[in-house]
Amino acid sequence: MGQYEFLDKINYPEDLRSLGVDDLPIVCNEIRDFLIDTLSGVGGHFASNLGVVELTVAIHYVFNTPTDRLIWDVGHQTYPHKILTGRKNLLKTVRKFNGISGFPKREESPYDTYNTGHAGTSISQLLGEAVSRDLLGKDYNCLAVIGDASIATGMALEAMNHGGHIAPNCLVILNDNYMSISKNVGSISNYLNNIISSHIYNKWKRLYYTFLKWLPLIGPALKVFSKKMERSFKYAFTPGGLFEDLGFVYIGPVNGHDVSKLVKMLTKIKDLDGPILLHVISQKGKGYIHAENDPIKYHGVTPFDRLNGNMVTKEGHISYSNLVGEVLIHLTQKSPKIVAITPAMIEGSGLNKYSQKFPKNIFDVGIAEQHSVAFAASLLGGGAIPFMCIYSTFMTRALDQMVHDVSLMNLPVRFVIDRAGCVGPDGETHQGLFDLGFLCTLPSMYILSPSNAQYLIESLFFMENFNDGPISVRFPKDSEMIKNIDFNNYKTLTPGKSVVVSKGDDITLLAIGSMVSIAIKVSDKLKESGITCTVIDLLWIRPLDLETINKEISETKHFAILDESYLDSGASGYILNRISPKLLNRFLKTFSFPPQPILHGERVEVLHYFKLDEEGISSELLSLISMT
Amino acid sequence: MGQYEFLDKINYPEDLRSLGVDDLPIVCNEIRDFLIDTLSGVGGHFASNLGVVELTVAIHYVFNTPTDRLIWDVGHQTYPHKILTGRKNLLKTVRKFNGISGFPKREESPYDTYNTGHAGTSISQLLGEAVSRDLLGKDYNCLAVIGDASIATGMALEAMNHGGHIAPNCLVILNDNYMSISKNVGSISNYLNNIISSHIYNKWKRLYYTFLKWLPLIGPALKVFSKKMERSFKYAFTPGGLFEDLGFVYIGPVNGHDVSKLVKMLTKIKDLDGPILLHVISQKGKGYIHAENDPIKYHGVTPFDRLNGNMVTKEGHISYSNLVGEVLIHLTQKSPKIVAITPAMIEGSGLNKYSQKFPKNIFDVGIAEQHSVAFAASLLGGGAIPFMCIYSTFMTRALDQMVHDVSLMNLPVRFVIDRAGCVGPDGETHQGLFDLGFLCTLPSMYILSPSNAQYLIESLFFMENFNDGPISVRFPKDSEMIKNIDFNNYKTLTPGKSVVVSKGDDITLLAIGSMVSIAIKVSDKLKESGITCTVIDLLWIRPLDLETINKEISETKHFAILDESYLDSGASGYILNRISPKLLNRFLKTFSFPPQPILHGERVEVLHYFKLDEEGISSELLSLISMT
Repeated sequence: MGQYEFLDKINYPEDLRSLGVDDLPIVCNEIRDFLIDTLSGVGGHFASNLGVVELTVAIHYVFNTPTDRLIWDVGHQTYPHKILTGRKNLLKTVRKFNGISGFPKREESPYDTYNTGHAGTSISQLLGEAVSRDLLGKDYNCLAVIGDASIATGMALEAMNHGGHIAPNCLVILNDNYMSISKNVGSISNYLNNIISSHIYNKWKRLYYTFLKWLPLIGPALKVFSKKMERSFKYAFTPGGLFEDLGFVYIGPVNGHDVSKLVKMLTKIKDLDGPILLHVISQKGKGYIHAENDPIKYHGVTPFDRLNGNMVTKEGHISYSNLVGEVLIHLTQKSPKIVAITPAMIEGSGLNKYSQKFPKNIFDVGIAEQHSVAFAASLLGGGAIPFMCIYSTFMTRALDQMVHDVSLMNLPVRFVIDRAGCVGPDGETHQGLFDLGFLCTLPSMYILSPSNAQYLIESLFFMENFNDGPISVRFPKDSEMIKNIDFNNYKTLTPGKSVVVSKGDDITLLAIGSMVSIAIKVSDKLKESGITCTVIDLLWIRPLDLETINKEISETKHFAILDESYLDSGASGYILNRISPKLLNRFLKTFSFPPQPILHGERVEVLHYFKLDEEGISSELLSLISMT
Repeated sequence: MGQYEFLDKINYPEDLRSLGVDDLPIVCNEIRDFLIDTLSGVGGHFASNLGVVELTVAIHYVFNTPTDRLIWDVGHQTYPHKILTGRKNLLKTVRKFNGISGFPKREESPYDTYNTGHAGTSISQLLGEAVSRDLLGKDYNCLAVIGDASIATGMALEAMNHGGHIAPNCLVILNDNYMSISKNVGSISNYLNNIISSHIYNKWKRLYYTFLKWLPLIGPALKVFSKKMERSFKYAFTPGGLFEDLGFVYIGPVNGHDVSKLVKMLTKIKDLDGPILLHVISQKGKGYIHAENDPIKYHGVTPFDRLNGNMVTKEGHISYSNLVGEVLIHLTQKSPKIVAITPAMIEGSGLNKYSQKFPKNIFDVGIAEQHSVAFAASLLGGGAIPFMCIYSTFMTRALDQMVHDVSLMNLPVRFVIDRAGCVGPDGETHQGLFDLGFLCTLPSMYILSPSNAQYLIESLFFMENFNDGPISVRFPKDSEMIKNIDFNNYKTLTPGKSVVVSKGDDITLLAIGSMVSIAIKVSDKLKESGITCTVIDLLWIRPLDLETINKEISETKHFAILDESYLDSGASGYILNRISPKLLNRFLKTFSFPPQPILHGERVEVLHYFKLDEEGISSELLSLISMT
């Protein structure tokens, strides 16, 4: 305490606003130091937060938040915002169970306008806010901050197309750091780079700003004279034609680490009419050398040594994501027709090594889930074998394409669905609690939900050779201790064949994927009370091993389903509809998440909180049996 | 027979290709006449098909289909394509049960590359086809035809962003008719209109084409000299900067009804490298005066009088869509805070009259379902009351937004979901068979599924006053005979209160929405066999009236669920998970659609085919009972 000259006295934006502009660079330095200090201790999203320090300070200094509505896209870059809006002392709890969220959260603060997590929503929300303000005759500013990767998502482009047309007063701040989590891809990214590197731009910049300053005066005159001439004039001087074509007034680019200039600029454009896009150039990891040099590695961090930047890692463990990457490398070596598709998740999906080994076989399409799935399906047209790698939580973005562009045509796209189930610290907007239920709705989709690394590998092997229609494998955000992977040592799976892990007399536990290990622990625990369980590792959700399921249930008194999904978006309804009805009165319960937002924290903490660990499930089962 | 000089001899594109270019205008006239003649008799998508006659002829004349891969976006404009690819004599069966589909269908013809129906997929598919071709070292052309409304969907823009970046050889033909089903909206639409009306364009057009012709020669030289100069040069002469910014070479605009010019143009650009966008201007309804004058009315037609254009209508009936429009007018008159949002479906969602009465309260956002939902939610920010009007089949596009931007924040968006259940003639890509299951997965979503006009009206009344969270009402594509609507004559619904329609001893039928009337008929039919039924009209899916359900089931020997959804994307799993387990062995079956594409035809025909009418359900119930 008492460490920082200014920051110690800043709790809310009003404290910030009482300072002089000249003090702001020091405030920024202090915030940056506080971020590095805190996050090196507790981990969290890192590089992107270092990149928006000056922008965040400038925004809260110039705009009258929370009356002025500030919307952050994705929201993993809101740590400086949280520091400035009453949560400075809680930052050390970020992403922890009972701590603050790593994303904006309305329940935490009136300064958090929307709970976010998925990319590209902010411009839609900005427009809704602005239109609604005007409809109700209110008066305040609405602004959104969106990154250069997010602005190229379909949803954001849809919003710009609409926004330029209806043209309410609002401000989009494009925070351009050339990056999604990986290096950004796509034409719009190239376009932005061209703007920045353009000599024409540098040459005309000063003249352009002079023009802009006079625009309110000469603009109307020009309009009367010739709308076309005005446009030609603007084109020649403006580097942001793409955004102008979409109906936004483009301003920029401006250095995102010069807080005084940002304040000046925001003050100037605050009262301009119509939709404005301000192009801000920033650097991910700014001010921490290790993160500047490797912003991908430092996108999200575990606790690290502040001096040398070294992060804590689990020795000997391989994440399921990286395991998938290894399997795909193995398969592509044998069959160069294989391609991997990812919507901006090369690292997260374990495809880094793959992308280096097979640069022609990997397609990072940007944050474009809708496009990615239809693209993957049509790769089959020429004879390629597509593995569509996607997170469970982002799969929801592409569900229409999974239905129409894949499933209804029975196209054999291989879906590799990472981070299924409770994802832990990322919390409610990233939970993988929908995918299984959605997969069950897809006509003709085969579904594998392996419970361990061995089954995951065997699933991927099976999928390579499966051409009868679409097929999915889903697995949790987890890792496993594996010594040596010998890819010659795996069996060929039989479709629709489940695994009876153990046999008992009282309860059959139908366990799916990540819940198998918990089912085994439940079985062990119930033995202490004299209750014995049959544990079935379903492995296949479609085809479902009804023969085994019906047989095992008929040999026990009760059964229950264990599924780490939302109750109403898991496989339990699908299973109950198929089990022999005469056995259904042996049903006790589906153990799944209730229909409500599921908070962040370590997975074990979250499962415990919702009584979905061995303790909670065992005691609930005992109580249910005692009632029958 | 023998009516048309050329068309009678054309069955496949090879027949077309044997003709001279000079014959093509006559072929086009014949196709147009054949379309008007056939569709005035049987109905179908109309105006858009008249608009693409010349383009279709030119494409099949120039390109070597089906080896060259031709992809149609949406696909309701493929009737001329079907005529030219072996299905001329089947056109009279279009959209009929056992007839050909109104959309491309791979099962019908190798010329139909993808089964489509939802907008904006074609550029993704085009890229996948082109990339896959190159990866496998094959050699043929890939092209897509997309409309000016479709190209502004997020998915298509995502694809352009990716396509301009990876830049394979491929051709996007933008068929620009200023329309979606309604008049097109959005910045991109404005932009296209500006291109067309631009004087600069007309002035420089000839010079531009000369430039283009010489580009292969002077291009490389210019590149060496200065890449920047080349771009400036192109900008000055090219009207398609937006597409150039996205990495596509823009060519056009060209008159879409001049078949000779189209042939010349396509021949010229067929072998150009990289991604090309050809801008074609066409007119919806071209060649049929009534459709030219009112392309919205003639977008899709019932049989009509060829001479005066008069269509057959059902007298005295009001469609549920129009009924919703009437209710929203009534509500907005009382509360001007109400706004209606539609993704390009003003007519289809019955909002035509509303949009004329309250132009400031309606937002047609274009074919942008993702944006529409987040936009609707944030309208709450300033105090507006959003009614989000969307078709069941297009809701899938916005599911991620319904989860994250609405449901997890518990925002009281009112969802009005039209065309739930079997939609009839539009067939498999338009079936509303997913929405109920998806709605059940959404934490905190209230769900109403009214079985008739009265409950629909009462549902909408209830929704206006409900502010506790998101709420949905879903209803089929149907109409009802209503004399006078007296909005003062309706009751206030009690949340979670179902309606016991009739009481019996043997089977409780839990019926949802459109299946209630069928359940009543089943009940009547079973009486003949001495079986009596309790029929419950659930009305509310969430909250679910478990008290009534458990009570009624406990008083009968069996129960069944009737839900016009896909089995695995309806409410049955949700219901089974909640019914008292000790009653579950009375469960007979869920009557729903099986997980497979559901074909087109009249709804009664389709229900009959899948044994989901009173006949099929009654006999199945009798057989199930006899086995117990």
